[in-house]
Formats: sequence, C-alpha cells, structure tokens
Amino acid sequence: MKRTITRLADGRELLYFDRNDGADRGAIDRRDLPPRPGASELRYDPLTEEWIAVAGHRQSRTFLPPAGECPLCPSGPGRLTEIPSPSYEVVVFENRFPSFSTQPGEYPQVGGLSEVRPGVGRCEVVCFTPDHDSSFSALPPDRVELVMEAWIDRTAELSAMPGVEQVFCFENRGAEIGITLAHPHGQIYAYPYVTPRTRLSLGAAERHRERTGGNLFADVLAAEREAGVRVVASNEHWTAFVPAAARWPVEVHLYPHRRVPDLVALEEAERVAFGPLYTEVLRRLDGLFGVPMPYVAAWHQAPARVGRELSYAHLELFSVRRAPDKLKYLAGSEAAMGAFVNDVLPEETARRLRSIVTE
Amino acid sequence: MKRTITRLADGRELLYFDRNDGADRGAIDRRDLPPRPGASELRYDPLTEEWIAVAGHRQSRTFLPPAGECPLCPSGPGRLTEIPSPSYEVVVFENRFPSFSTQPGEYPQVGGLSEVRPGVGRCEVVCFTPDHDSSFSALPPDRVELVMEAWIDRTAELSAMPGVEQVFCFENRGAEIGITLAHPHGQIYAYPYVTPRTRLSLGAAERHRERTGGNLFADVLAAEREAGVRVVASNEHWTAFVPAAARWPVEVHLYPHRRVPDLVALEEAERVAFGPLYTEVLRRLDGLFGVPMPYVAAWHQAPARVGRELSYAHLELFSVRRAPDKLKYLAGSEAAMGAFVNDVLPEETARRLRSIVTE
Repeated sequence: MKRTITRLADGRELLYFDRNDGADRGAIDRRDLPPRPGASELRYDPLTEEWIAVAGHRQSRTFLPPAGECPLCPSGPGRLTEIPSPSYEVVVFENRFPSFSTQPGEYPQVGGLSEVRPGVGRCEVVCFTPDHDSSFSALPPDRVELVMEAWIDRTAELSAMPGVEQVFCFENRGAEIGITLAHPHGQIYAYPYVTPRTRLSLGAAERHRERTGGNLFADVLAAEREAGVRVVASNEHWTAFVPAAARWPVEVHLYPHRRVPDLVALEEAERVAFGPLYTEVLRRLDGLFGVPMPYVAAWHQAPARVGRELSYAHLELFSVRRAPDKLKYLAGSEAAMGAFVNDVLPEETARRLRSIVTE
Repeated sequence: MKRTITRLADGRELLYFDRNDGADRGAIDRRDLPPRPGASELRYDPLTEEWIAVAGHRQSRTFLPPAGECPLCPSGPGRLTEIPSPSYEVVVFENRFPSFSTQPGEYPQVGGLSEVRPGVGRCEVVCFTPDHDSSFSALPPDRVELVMEAWIDRTAELSAMPGVEQVFCFENRGAEIGITLAHPHGQIYAYPYVTPRTRLSLGAAERHRERTGGNLFADVLAAEREAGVRVVASNEHWTAFVPAAARWPVEVHLYPHRRVPDLVALEEAERVAFGPLYTEVLRRLDGLFGVPMPYVAAWHQAPARVGRELSYAHLELFSVRRAPDKLKYLAGSEAAMGAFVNDVLPEETARRLRSIVTE
C-alpha cells in the first residue's frame, strides 16, 4: 500500500491511498481557490451539557451540483476538481467547508449562560471510487481493504492531533439522508469532544461492568448470536444483526468477534474479512425495497483518550426508509424528546433482509 | 368553558372543548371501525439505557389522504370523520394508530440483552381548527386560550393515569417534518417513562443547582433577557428567544417569566398572555423565508412524579428549514453521534426574526 500526501491550492491536505506502489500521484491542484474559512465555534448548551458547533460558512457550501461539475470526480482535461489526479483508488482530503478545523477564527463570548470555544478539529472527505454513479456496495473486496487502511490511517493520525477527542468515520448515502454531493463518498470527523452518543454508551458500559463484570458490547453481541433470530449475515470474524431495540425501520449493527477499541487494533484477517460481509449487507439493504437504500453508516470507535477499555469498535448502519414510498421522519417525539417509535419489528426486518437473494 | 366527553365507534375517547357552554356535541360516530390495535411494546436498548417503542400497526396508518378524505375535518353529510360533530372549536381524541395505549397486547421476550414490556400510555390528537387549510399561527387569541385549557386538562388527567411518567404536548407542522395528515393538528403523548431529553436536562439542572444554588432554566432565561441580542419577542408574562447554543437553523424557546413545573400551574393571566406572543412568533417564522415554515413545537413539562422542583415548563420551537430551498438533515454526525452542527448563527436568526413585519 502506498500513501501519497499532497496539498490542494488553498493549503488543505490530500492523501492518496493506492494498492499499487508505482501509482503516480504527482498532479498539482491548479485551481484559484478562495482562502479557507475560519474555524467554527463551539457553544455549550447548558440544558443538555452538550457542545453545538456553529459553522456559518457552511450555509454556502456546494449543494447538489450537476454531475458535470462534481468536485469528487477525478480531474480531467478542462475540468479541475478537488482531486488533482486523473484517477484514484481511495483519496482523503480536508473538507472545504468543515464543521471543525484548525484555521484561526474569532470567538467572542455571547452571554446567555453559553460558553464559547474554538471548534478545533478536522473534517475530511473519503472518496473510494472515481465512478460518479457507483456505490460502496459495488466495491470489490480489495478496494474495501484499501478504504479500511485509510480509516485506520486517519483514525491513528487524527486521534493524535492536539484537541481531538474522538474520530468518527461515516458515510451518508442518498438524497433522502441529506447528502449535498451525489458522488459516493464517506467522511471523517475529528471532534474536539466526546460525542453525546458515545458518552451515553460509555456510561451504560461502565454500569454494566460494575453490575456484571462483563463488557456491554461483547455481551450484546454474544446474546444476539445466541438468539440468532435477528442475525442478518456473518463470517468467521464479523456478525451483522438487527438490534433488538432498533430505533430505525432498517438498522443493522456489524461487530468484529474480537473486542477492539478502534479500527487501528484490528488484525489483518479481521480487516480483510470485513469487506465481503459489509458489501453483502449493503446489497441486502438495496434489495429490501427494490430502490437504492439511503443510509447512514457510522463507525463507533473508542474516544482518543477516555473509556478505551470499555469501548468495542462496531459499525451501526441505519436508514430512514420504512417502505418503498415512505420515510421515517424524526418529528416531535424523536427530535424534541429523544423518544423513538419504530414502526417495524426488528425480527421482521432481519427476516426480510436474510431473504434477499444477493449474487 | 365546556368539556364534553364521548366515545368513537371503536371505543376511543373524544373530548370537545368549547367556549360556549351551550354547544351541542351530541353527534354519534356511526362509522364501522375495525377493532383497535393492541398496544405497542417497549424494548430496552442496553447501549443507551433508553426504551424504544415498537408499534408495528403504525406502518399502515393513514398517510397523506386527499383533502376530501381528511379524517380531521368535521363530519358532514355523506362524510364521516374522526370528529362526529359538524363543527368544533377544540377537540381531543385518542389516536387511532397510537405509539402507546392501554389496549392489551402480547409481549414475548426477544433475547439479545433487551428487556420487553408493554407500551402502556396514551396518544391523543388535538384539533384546534375545523379549517383544513388554516394553521396555528392564524388562531385568534380566545382559540389559543381554549387550546391551552385542553393542554392543561390533558396534562392533569394523563399524568394521573397509572404507568404514565411524562406528558408531552406538541405540534408537527409541514410535509418537510413528516406529517401524515395535512389538516393542522397537535398531539399529546403520555409516555410510560421519562424521555431521554428530559432525563438529560433534569440531570443538568440538578448539577447546576448543586453548583450555583439556582434553577438552571430560570438562570438561562434571566441571562437571555439580559443579553437581549437573541430575544425575538416578549410581553409581560413571556419571553421568546433563540438559544445561544441553538441546534437547529431556526429555533425559538418561549418561557413564562414565573417558574412553573407544568402548564397546569400557570395562572390565568399567564395563560391568556401566551397566545398573542406565540402566534406572533409563528408569523415571524412564516415570514422568514416567505414560505410556511415547517416546525416542531414541543412543550417541555415536568415529569409526572420526579424532578418537578427542578423543572420549568417552556416551549421549544424549531425547524429543519435552513433556506427557502434547503433543509437541515440529521445525517451522520447528528443522527448517529448526537453531535449537532448548526450552519446559522443564533444571533443572526434572532435579528432576522425580529425584522419580520407582522400585522
């Protein structure tokens, strides 16, 4: 595997990941780009004890451009994109409109019992196919391995950055989920705080350990493998199941069989075994309603500095689609009170996903 | 004020609230309705220590029917709806497809470390205008007072029901927010647990009291009134402001100036003063982008049994609309990690809302 680091015209870092050590990634970004925006600010919400990022510059970010102006396609004659090279396998670069960054900014206090601090961190874009119309589910196993290498590289490097508390690798797919660029891509957020969801789960894991002596995530995985009824697919190193208390009409969690705090700690055989199972699960999702499934795929990893002995790296994949022509919306109960109502039985979702015929 | 209780054809309760004590609400529901669905089940999510309601029967609920088949319009010749009367002011009835109810159901354990229990509770629909094309913002003050009486009546009565831990009055407005019935209406959920958001805020309020001796919500309100820059509107008894750490591109909180745990504790003058301020705020929202603003309006009230001395009843109003042609989606960061990124400065939202000319 070859890693090539370069910089875009406005100073942002870009990294190519190639299987072929001879890949030529010397192309230079010749665009005339405006200066990078200042970093966002973080505001403390005293009612929830959570930090909210306020990034005003993102209002004007690129919004669903036509395919001919896609910034995630490789550059070509007469057409300069975010990726200078005329081709790529996997490429990662700093987001032009980041929610977190290390650019200087101004952070006046704003009163109202809310503290303000800089939104230090980093947001990266992960492109894994030069094909504008492809999808993660269509990637061959060796390409998924390369994406995994990129996730691992970025997790290790971003976790070591001053101020970064958690690295989150994810993919939003589909207009229904709010993507602003149609070209398939993932993202990586390096947060300057431990996210609310992770705090919640680490608290639960700590109480579980005090009560039972066991690891919460390992015990959930063991119980799901024993129950079997919600398992969607598995191989020697990974199991995919619909959680018993699924929040979303389509939701699948993928766990490695061995507890690791983050992707960095996966062994070679585990890294290799992930792709075939994951892309199979994605194809089952696409088969469920006969239309490409919109989804969020979220890697839950240990924070950089705390709770690492309690954490268990796993992927949570979910969709807002509840029928071929209906979406699940987060309205009053979910969005205001955090109280989820799921209209679909998890066992039924698992059964239907298992029944999809995949090549 | 007159309250008339009746039952629909399938046994669900319906209550009319009228300003005129002589209103005739004797009409009988003559529809041939199928039996009511069994109650949903609650499943415990061990990773978050939260309960998820699973209500399979809701998959087939009425979905955006044409106006001629609207179940929330009054009944008329040849057309029988959920409201038997040929007219109404405010009417509340049990939801035909409830997320929580007291109907019997079956609750087998499902394994996977998730406990299952009955989804005991109640879900009600609140209709406040017989006009299919109207909106809450267009209600005259005396109608809003009547809605307030209905909220108070239902909060008191549902809080006293066995198993109910929290009563949540709210309105979802707009297709963008996922409404399944276009006729303007609110809802009331009587939950069999304290909701995740309320638990979070009560924890924060308790720590704030230990640290400062003050009430968290009262201190936030006082600080916002002092800062002034985010105040949108106010009168003698209520203040509306954009919170300093707003999560949503449009977000306004309305607090009564006197701390009350729930709406039941509001005095007459406070009840009366709410409507004019709230409908003014709603009209400012509609004026912001020149299109009817989709929103969630959520009454945060004290739980029925715990944390009442810490609670401060207030309304949180927010929208997913961030521009005339763009929505805010909860994608990876928000939906998977609970980490919000807001693209709009709260002070800017407040300034723009203040500048809207309302009649």
